[in-house]
Amino acid sequence: MRVLGIDPAAAGPTGYGVVETDGRTYRVLDFGVLRHARSARPEARLAAVHTLIARLVEKFSPDAVALEAVFTALNMKTALKLAEVRGVVLLAAEQQHIPVHSYAPRQVKAHVAGYGHADKRQMQQMVRVLLNLREAPQPSDAADALAVALCHIYAAQARERFAAATAPAVPRLRDETRNSRHRGARIQVSR
Amino acid sequence: MRVLGIDPAAAGPTGYGVVETDGRTYRVLDFGVLRHARSARPEARLAAVHTLIARLVEKFSPDAVALEAVFTALNMKTALKLAEVRGVVLLAAEQQHIPVHSYAPRQVKAHVAGYGHADKRQMQQMVRVLLNLREAPQPSDAADALAVALCHIYAAQARERFAAATAPAVPRLRDETRNSRHRGARIQVSR
Repeated sequence: MRVLGIDPAAAGPTGYGVVETDGRTYRVLDFGVLRHARSARPEARLAAVHTLIARLVEKFSPDAVALEAVFTALNMKTALKLAEVRGVVLLAAEQQHIPVHSYAPRQVKAHVAGYGHADKRQMQQMVRVLLNLREAPQPSDAADALAVALCHIYAAQARERFAAATAPAVPRLRDETRNSRHRGARIQVSR
Repeated sequence: MRVLGIDPAAAGPTGYGVVETDGRTYRVLDFGVLRHARSARPEARLAAVHTLIARLVEKFSPDAVALEAVFTALNMKTALKLAEVRGVVLLAAEQQHIPVHSYAPRQVKAHVAGYGHADKRQMQQMVRVLLNLREAPQPSDAADALAVALCHIYAAQARERFAAATAPAVPRLRDETRNSRHRGARIQVSR
């Protein structure tokens, strides 16, 4: 499973990170930030984010894109700008048929650091350890993007475990076998 | 001047309208709404809006795209969804090199109906009259899109009038004439 994590920003750099896992180990394929010129128009920033996502999806063919849901405790103006960037990320993923998953900041912290109130330093430390890196990824927006990618991987694994634990696997299989035998018998009769 | 007006929506239909003017008369070239299936995923809605804008820009080659700024008196969740759609509209315009202009609802009302507290019915009536239509454009989201297109036209005309009234046109012209004569003379001297 390969996940592209995105940490969209209203004005600052947009972080990205690509994480791959075989279910046991986690590997970073790429990470970094997209910086905008101070003078860049909002539309031009959106276009740059769109191009970035399109290129990363093309290069790494991730199974999913994960990004942070807009944090509603921000001031309204910043939250709206962030939502515009978020809309463009959702669009870019959709256009390349990659499912997108959003996680609230608290969920990212809970999945990656184990509790929803971990601070920035603790999160960076956890990302470093989980991804077997010598140093915490820099700049911090890239680390945040890797964190949300990891969050998605853990959340997906949790969903799989839950599905496996609650699915009535054996009875269903029997039912299907019985039905198919029954149908097979019928076909023979009708011959 | 040809303007594509967009009335983006968080969940309902996105309205659009294309208005052309020679500075005196106003003509509607197209209007309508983009409806989404109730079951449509948010990403799929964003992609549909992006495709709509791209097609309209291609078909009508507008000089500008005009849309309403997100109305911050909405509840936060709706405002954020609307901002995502807005981000996609900004992107689509930018990708086709069309300038985008945002207007607050109050500005649209002030420009189109003459005062910022016009109600919905008054606005529809004004759009009908200004565009020489027999009936108010339906559905209302399309009328709203035409209103924001008209708003941009009036705002652009007001900016032009302001620029014309305040520009030091005559002294500048004289300066240019002097310079070009001077340059002309120089060229003659060097012959």
